Amino acid sequence: MISMTQLSDKLLRADYAVRGPIVLRAQDLEAEGKKIIYCNIGNPQALKQPPLTFMRQLLCLVEYPALLDRPEVIAPFPGDIVDRARFVLQRHPHGTGAYTQSAGIPFIRQAVADFIARRDDVPASAAQVILTDGASKGAQAVLTALLKDPGDGFMIPIPQYPLYSASLTLYGGQAIGYFLDEQSQWQLREETLTESFEAAKRAGINPVGIVVINPGNPTGAVLSQQNVEMIIGFARRNELAIIADEVYQENVYAAGRSFHSFAKVMQALGDTETPLFSLHSVSKGFLGECGHRGGYLEIRNTPEEVLGEFIKLQSIALCANVSGQLATYLMVTPPQPGDESHELYVRERDGILSDLKQKAEILGDGLDKVPGMSVDVPQGAMYAFVRFELPQDQGVDLDAMSPEQREAYEAERNAQYCMTLLEETGICVVPGSGFGQRPGTLHFRTTFLPPRSEIEELVASLGQFHRRYTQAMGT
Amino acid sequence: MISMTQLSDKLLRADYAVRGPIVLRAQDLEAEGKKIIYCNIGNPQALKQPPLTFMRQLLCLVEYPALLDRPEVIAPFPGDIVDRARFVLQRHPHGTGAYTQSAGIPFIRQAVADFIARRDDVPASAAQVILTDGASKGAQAVLTALLKDPGDGFMIPIPQYPLYSASLTLYGGQAIGYFLDEQSQWQLREETLTESFEAAKRAGINPVGIVVINPGNPTGAVLSQQNVEMIIGFARRNELAIIADEVYQENVYAAGRSFHSFAKVMQALGDTETPLFSLHSVSKGFLGECGHRGGYLEIRNTPEEVLGEFIKLQSIALCANVSGQLATYLMVTPPQPGDESHELYVRERDGILSDLKQKAEILGDGLDKVPGMSVDVPQGAMYAFVRFELPQDQGVDLDAMSPEQREAYEAERNAQYCMTLLEETGICVVPGSGFGQRPGTLHFRTTFLPPRSEIEELVASLGQFHRRYTQAMGT
Repeated sequence: MISMTQLSDKLLRADYAVRGPIVLRAQDLEAEGKKIIYCNIGNPQALKQPPLTFMRQLLCLVEYPALLDRPEVIAPFPGDIVDRARFVLQRHPHGTGAYTQSAGIPFIRQAVADFIARRDDVPASAAQVILTDGASKGAQAVLTALLKDPGDGFMIPIPQYPLYSASLTLYGGQAIGYFLDEQSQWQLREETLTESFEAAKRAGINPVGIVVINPGNPTGAVLSQQNVEMIIGFARRNELAIIADEVYQENVYAAGRSFHSFAKVMQALGDTETPLFSLHSVSKGFLGECGHRGGYLEIRNTPEEVLGEFIKLQSIALCANVSGQLATYLMVTPPQPGDESHELYVRERDGILSDLKQKAEILGDGLDKVPGMSVDVPQGAMYAFVRFELPQDQGVDLDAMSPEQREAYEAERNAQYCMTLLEETGICVVPGSGFGQRPGTLHFRTTFLPPRSEIEELVASLGQFHRRYTQAMGT
Repeated sequence: MISMTQLSDKLLRADYAVRGPIVLRAQDLEAEGKKIIYCNIGNPQALKQPPLTFMRQLLCLVEYPALLDRPEVIAPFPGDIVDRARFVLQRHPHGTGAYTQSAGIPFIRQAVADFIARRDDVPASAAQVILTDGASKGAQAVLTALLKDPGDGFMIPIPQYPLYSASLTLYGGQAIGYFLDEQSQWQLREETLTESFEAAKRAGINPVGIVVINPGNPTGAVLSQQNVEMIIGFARRNELAIIADEVYQENVYAAGRSFHSFAKVMQALGDTETPLFSLHSVSKGFLGECGHRGGYLEIRNTPEEVLGEFIKLQSIALCANVSGQLATYLMVTPPQPGDESHELYVRERDGILSDLKQKAEILGDGLDKVPGMSVDVPQGAMYAFVRFELPQDQGVDLDAMSPEQREAYEAERNAQYCMTLLEETGICVVPGSGFGQRPGTLHFRTTFLPPRSEIEELVASLGQFHRRYTQAMGT
């Protein structure tokens, strides 16, 4: 028998809170018959968001092309969908059944490049696009390639999406946290970046890159163009590669805010030096096709031979799954005006996005009004990172604790709160400690993905729980 | 700009010959209009092997469940397929659109456990099954978990499938090669295992596991029950975990040979100690669904807390793609006698398998008759590992070379031969050096997957090329 002591320490130390012990407990409770509201993860279709019709129609035809030979089957399909299925199979006759080239199906890589060029009005090349099994695999590829020595590290936001901390631990790299500024709706501050960079250097760590999540996970923040410019300048001066996690680029709700891609801002700045690795996915936006594991990694300011190493890395496990590649293709080439499927596409897309916007407002406004909780209405993405206060424990002397002791104490309080919330209400959220938070603060991350009919109840239920929980502590 | 010197040495050193420079050249030649016969990779549907009808019918219905509401569409589908699509959607209402649990959809894990129990007449539990994006990801998970210190290594066969050497390099583990015995149709020899194990120990390497590929890639060998027993005993005595790469378990052609799973033999031996990690995939067998990236990892003789760490590892990139999970489900629960789809399923399955068997014979017999080539008819899998002789280079003194120099010299001769073969005939094979081979021998790996109508021509073309090439060298 193998024992825990024989496992890699890196694996043992890696923590991925989004699917941690609270979620495992939720699955057990569900198996026992309790109703669980899974707000722990951005998994829209698990919370009844319907898939877009055009996507599923096209995927089903390519999956089983014999349908195309049956006029009575395809008669009710929009003509553009049938034409596109035929086009896909003509460009890629192997359909879903064969390994593709390591970097993905060539015409889809080209379609992604065209999408970026259109979106940002910048030049883009298929050679710089690698199709991946979701954005997570793209991020892991960059960390794998750029972590050269054990002292190498990536700057990651606090709070961050724990894919980054977990993967850094797993690959033996250093996580260099930089605080996001909760007071200014979680934007980045140059001073904070510099402090964190300098502190890492002093500690003997060699920062090789910086991760930026925009729109933010778990914060819901949408970075201003000035903020993106500042980050690029900071990365350039300090010779850092940028990982731009831009999977929520379609999820911008706040009036006056819009998505500024790193590729576009970098082009405007004339920066042809700073390596940029940008990630996108079919799992988020209004598609929510998490199960298909589709996405891409676009690489800029990087010589061809380095691109070759990324493709070699991809080749070792052969290629991304083809359904996911096709879903990525459809994400970057949705129905156009004049297409028979366009009207339904627009209606479904706009319905989902306006629903998300309303749910963000209901949740943000509602929780902010709960005494002892505070949160801004999320500007984007699918999450609110809610701050909450607990009464001080009697007899606990925080000042007597070391920083590590205090962090462990606070993480425990944070986890206890979320676990009790789950047990009492069935609401499954993730403790802020799983994402990182400033010492002395407590948070939880919740999605605002449950159906609208349930969101108000969710807010009420969270508020009642918080009152009960803090009162019980106070007595 | 990032430079090669900033990349991880582990990545730079990782080599995956199956998609190496010869394949990249083949893609270039194809883009120039040359006809390429891709014998480099086990990718059946890229070489015109059709998908099984029941699989695609079911996948398309689950992809776009609205079809189930249209009687005129589903009328021509077999009744059992329609019922199964409804069953899948009832057990898993999120269909293909949502992340699943990290280890995969529960009822599919159970179906895999039931399949193993039926196949081997052994107890099996869903808790020990993890659904993966193809078998490659399963193998990489085991290496990730069990490589604890830089001196840890896995014993891998020579020749081996380069996923293993590449992943070991990438993860910083040691590859401990053990020679397969070409004289006895590539079985394993205990003496050779012991020698290789002892040599590794003497070199300060700590062997933690052994990889066995059965049926063999690239060898096409099917291990006897005695051979599997010997390996298990060896692993047990030396406290090694076993990675049993059993993705070709349906691909056994030789009369008198059959597949003996490690799980079954281990159970018969009453071994409840040796950790076993067995891999299976939808990419091989008679399905050939490579593009779906489906497969599983089954773990035995391992405590629950260690299983938990494997599931945590899987959770960091969320879950395997759902289409691949569904394809795995269908692999382990094919149509049964009495089902409407059964007859066609059997006809398609048997057609593909008998075709593969005949192609193995035509290729093996044919190439073995080429003067200067030798190979047994492959007993299983999809490959022949063909040995060939080249005239000695005039003026080259092998005895004056160090072992490293000699290996490099022979790898270069091996690669040159395969590259010239590609340029002159369009046939794309992989040099034996990419898999490992005994010093002083040369091989190439070819699949026998091209359509039957092309296999004889392929054999003739390889024979003519070999004559031409060796004659040119001799002059």
